[in-house]
Amino acid sequence: MEKKKNISIKEIAKLSNVSVATVSRVINNNGRFSEKTRERVQKIIKDYGYTTNMAAKSLRMAKSKTVGLIVPNIDNEWFSQLVLEIENYFFKNNYSVFICNTSQNEEKEIAYFKSLDSKMVDGIICISGIEEIPTEILTRDIPIVCIDRKPKDHSEAYYVESNHYSGGYLATEELIRQGCKRIAIVSRNKTLSVNRQRLEGYKQALKDYGLEENKELELLLNSNQANYDGAREVINHLIKENISFDGVFATNDWRAYGVLVGLLENDIQVPDEVKVIGFDDIFISQSSHPSISTIKQNIPELAKTASQLLLDLMNDALIKDEQKRYILPVEVIRRDSTK
Amino acid sequence: MEKKKNISIKEIAKLSNVSVATVSRVINNNGRFSEKTRERVQKIIKDYGYTTNMAAKSLRMAKSKTVGLIVPNIDNEWFSQLVLEIENYFFKNNYSVFICNTSQNEEKEIAYFKSLDSKMVDGIICISGIEEIPTEILTRDIPIVCIDRKPKDHSEAYYVESNHYSGGYLATEELIRQGCKRIAIVSRNKTLSVNRQRLEGYKQALKDYGLEENKELELLLNSNQANYDGAREVINHLIKENISFDGVFATNDWRAYGVLVGLLENDIQVPDEVKVIGFDDIFISQSSHPSISTIKQNIPELAKTASQLLLDLMNDALIKDEQKRYILPVEVIRRDSTK
Repeated sequence: MEKKKNISIKEIAKLSNVSVATVSRVINNNGRFSEKTRERVQKIIKDYGYTTNMAAKSLRMAKSKTVGLIVPNIDNEWFSQLVLEIENYFFKNNYSVFICNTSQNEEKEIAYFKSLDSKMVDGIICISGIEEIPTEILTRDIPIVCIDRKPKDHSEAYYVESNHYSGGYLATEELIRQGCKRIAIVSRNKTLSVNRQRLEGYKQALKDYGLEENKELELLLNSNQANYDGAREVINHLIKENISFDGVFATNDWRAYGVLVGLLENDIQVPDEVKVIGFDDIFISQSSHPSISTIKQNIPELAKTASQLLLDLMNDALIKDEQKRYILPVEVIRRDSTK
Repeated sequence: MEKKKNISIKEIAKLSNVSVATVSRVINNNGRFSEKTRERVQKIIKDYGYTTNMAAKSLRMAKSKTVGLIVPNIDNEWFSQLVLEIENYFFKNNYSVFICNTSQNEEKEIAYFKSLDSKMVDGIICISGIEEIPTEILTRDIPIVCIDRKPKDHSEAYYVESNHYSGGYLATEELIRQGCKRIAIVSRNKTLSVNRQRLEGYKQALKDYGLEENKELELLLNSNQANYDGAREVINHLIKENISFDGVFATNDWRAYGVLVGLLENDIQVPDEVKVIGFDDIFISQSSHPSISTIKQNIPELAKTASQLLLDLMNDALIKDEQKRYILPVEVIRRDSTK
């Protein structure tokens, strides 16, 4: 076996098939890890001639007290609220937060990872966005926590998300309980896992309440259709085609608002003739006329969980039970559109 | 006179009462400046023993190809759109942009100036926010460009803004042309100069068209009232008090939407009984039902002007005619609420 002197903690973690945090715990003999893990990590360390001195030095690396935050689009209220909560959390802990907007552009994302790396940030939070996180371009072992995004290499991933499946189920159940029998779903035709999970929840609720799934009521926007305009279009189409429906679950609030405006401009009364529910609980859902019921994700809790996790990883603190995935509950907010 | 050896270009600029860019032009004998300016700058340079070598070194300082962007609140569509445009502009020019959200908190703003300074950004754009820019804490001569914000020390300030006065005038004129005689204004009770200028434009338009100013139609929200809720409240109050009005100029679109919802819930028809116009042209104004007329600020042009100016300052390029203040035109967007 070829011996490398300059192996990093990250490479040790990869070769031992454990996280960077675990390697640092083994090196420092500090915190929880199994005997099997200890043996495996120490074998790699020995094979590659890594010394605890080097490890200690690497762990004592000067902290820059800054955190990078990668976000697909701050021009989206849900993301911007999450960003503000995370920013506040870190600011209270004496960290500056550099927000990097990628517009879901892969080239930008890579450039920002490089910038954050060269500016010596202590950690990175990645919100949603493209599937693969370009961790291979990082030159340092920077802890990363994801929100609503699973990096390809699951073994290294810490991530936090809402229970989107449960949200889809609860939204559909709310419409059923208010008497709806023919419930349309307005979502997006993408493999993004949050939309897929919300759709699954919708289907399961229909099934559990003995309602039939109906392909013509499954309205999936394509990438050319914006949320609000697209939703308005598909609802207008449904009405024009004389396809009957008495409830609509839109998988985000801008889509729900597009549905509402589409119904109102066809003189269809909400909630008397058709009931509507959205997802996210952004401002438009409470301020529309009538107001729109929705599924609320707990943004402060999402922000706190992800931020605390990153803070622990940056400080090499013990991550409880080596938990990597955190799923937070959601709740129905009932407003005029489902009364 | 005490001689200092380590005087910076910034200090020379201050002592000569000219900009840093002008000092660098004089030193390099490159670009426009008056003979009087040259004499003044060279006297300071001589008095303080500054050498052109030092200047050259300082001007050749390594560039980090990053820019800092200070924004009061990304959770505000108008700001977030501006931020995205600026980000795109710099990314195309091979710069990374670190967005720093201050929540209009002075302590945060100072902390972010320090972070950006220590991370060696090449320049800073400041959008709106608190009155005084804490430039005194910067350890390097970093060019700064402001948008909708005038730093206290005007001699050093480059700034770009929309013509808010003209916007207030045009909005009021639109209501007058559509037949309104008793026009209310819903704005904010703050010394923020953009609101003050919009109010002045409103008053001038009333005057020019021979309409009376009316204190009971001047509705200024206080700091406890949010834009949407506050506007809805003051309109409800006006209706309850039986104060007649047939037009409302709201000085931003969320206030205009609050006015619209307040009218609708009192069964007052828009635009038949009361016409409404907003400011900013954010998404809610085009997507409300009925849609809301508004004053459009040219966000791409604001972003481009500020970004190009900063890029020129960072590259020590010639700033045309030493212009420091850039005021961009606005336009009326007519929608259903003033038809």
